[in-house]
Amino acid sequence: MCPMITSPDNQKLKEIRKLARSRRRTDLFIAEGEDLVDAAAAAGWEPEYVLRAGVDVEEKLLADASTLGSGTRVIGVYRERWSEPGGLLSLFLDGIKDPGNIGTIIRSAHALCDGPVIIGPRCADPFGAKAVRASMGSIFARPPGRLHRGPGPLFSSFTTGPGPLVNLPGTRVALVRDAPRTVRELELYGPVVVMVGGERAGLGPDALNAAHVRARIPIRDDGPDSLNAAMAATVALYELGHRIAADG
Amino acid sequence: MCPMITSPDNQKLKEIRKLARSRRRTDLFIAEGEDLVDAAAAAGWEPEYVLRAGVDVEEKLLADASTLGSGTRVIGVYRERWSEPGGLLSLFLDGIKDPGNIGTIIRSAHALCDGPVIIGPRCADPFGAKAVRASMGSIFARPPGRLHRGPGPLFSSFTTGPGPLVNLPGTRVALVRDAPRTVRELELYGPVVVMVGGERAGLGPDALNAAHVRARIPIRDDGPDSLNAAMAATVALYELGHRIAADG
Repeated sequence: MCPMITSPDNQKLKEIRKLARSRRRTDLFIAEGEDLVDAAAAAGWEPEYVLRAGVDVEEKLLADASTLGSGTRVIGVYRERWSEPGGLLSLFLDGIKDPGNIGTIIRSAHALCDGPVIIGPRCADPFGAKAVRASMGSIFARPPGRLHRGPGPLFSSFTTGPGPLVNLPGTRVALVRDAPRTVRELELYGPVVVMVGGERAGLGPDALNAAHVRARIPIRDDGPDSLNAAMAATVALYELGHRIAADG
Repeated sequence: MCPMITSPDNQKLKEIRKLARSRRRTDLFIAEGEDLVDAAAAAGWEPEYVLRAGVDVEEKLLADASTLGSGTRVIGVYRERWSEPGGLLSLFLDGIKDPGNIGTIIRSAHALCDGPVIIGPRCADPFGAKAVRASMGSIFARPPGRLHRGPGPLFSSFTTGPGPLVNLPGTRVALVRDAPRTVRELELYGPVVVMVGGERAGLGPDALNAAHVRARIPIRDDGPDSLNAAMAATVALYELGHRIAADG
């Protein structure tokens, strides 16, 4: 039984504060709140450690270390895990910079497809505090994937060139807003990877070159230019997941 | 030609700072950034006034007034407008508290249906700065609706009881995660209003009582408990919009 932490200079609190700000040069990450820590346990993840307000640490000290501020009851620290690319239906993200979108997409993929979300270049950190929160725990049940592990555990190191992209399994469908065909009109063969780009820049040239086919989400002529990237990814998984299941 | 604003005590800057914090007791709201101000103009909205950095106001003063901080080139102040309920397909929101979700849903509805997003009780302010930004300008092209105007322009005044809910046009479909039927299996008649609740509390009893039918988004058995509310709303509009168009 450890004594309760009463100093802000405690090593664990220092580490949590650092992880809450930035995750450069570490493969540890934080999950804030009971729902996330419970989701990690339900998915069989062992935390490096967990701090509970009023049990392991003074309430105010935990609140100060958290990105959520007061009311944070618990913070768990975990070591990141990555899935291998695979599955009948999976996603590849390119330049999705909003961490909330990344987490939401991981949650949608957990709901709608069997493969992981592959985090491509120029994306936000999927293990950042905001992305983990937006995933609502799905990041534990279905960890994201990546193409290239890089020389170390640095998130920023996994730059992806055209080589590794070709290793994505199955038919690569690029979501492109002005594609002539809609996701409803695609002919599908084998496993499918849906490739989704950032809202402004769209998919990069490497991803477009590696795609077998382009498709769009059908939207109204009097509508906006595009859907939010997480919405587009979710609708594509909903549509293609249904059709792949119907084919099988 | 007005002289450039060089004092933080300028009345317009004071008003923008107030609107950026909270919109109680006003029907004015702000749109920050060139994309939003352009979207307003494209949709025919006249601003109350627009402040441009380096033209109407010193750059730093505009940045200080903005919720976005430095880099804000322009802020427009507008008077809110509400759409009447209607359309072949529209949405009703109940207890969607995240302003980003509200704005994203307004954008998705603009892309996928012809009717407005009706903002029901316990929702975030659709004209708050964050919701307007997440709408990516769709709030101007397709203003949200409400059921009950209330005694004045106060956003917080439009509480919705069971009476007004019955006035939503057409078939009211409640999205409920454990409904026996999926949105794919629904028989649809006439105009449809999809009712979406907050992620934890779901739809309130008034909305459930006013619904004609319940349906769910089909998700994997090994998936999460639910989709993000904006994802669920978007998938429902995608599915039902397609089927309504196919029926007509």
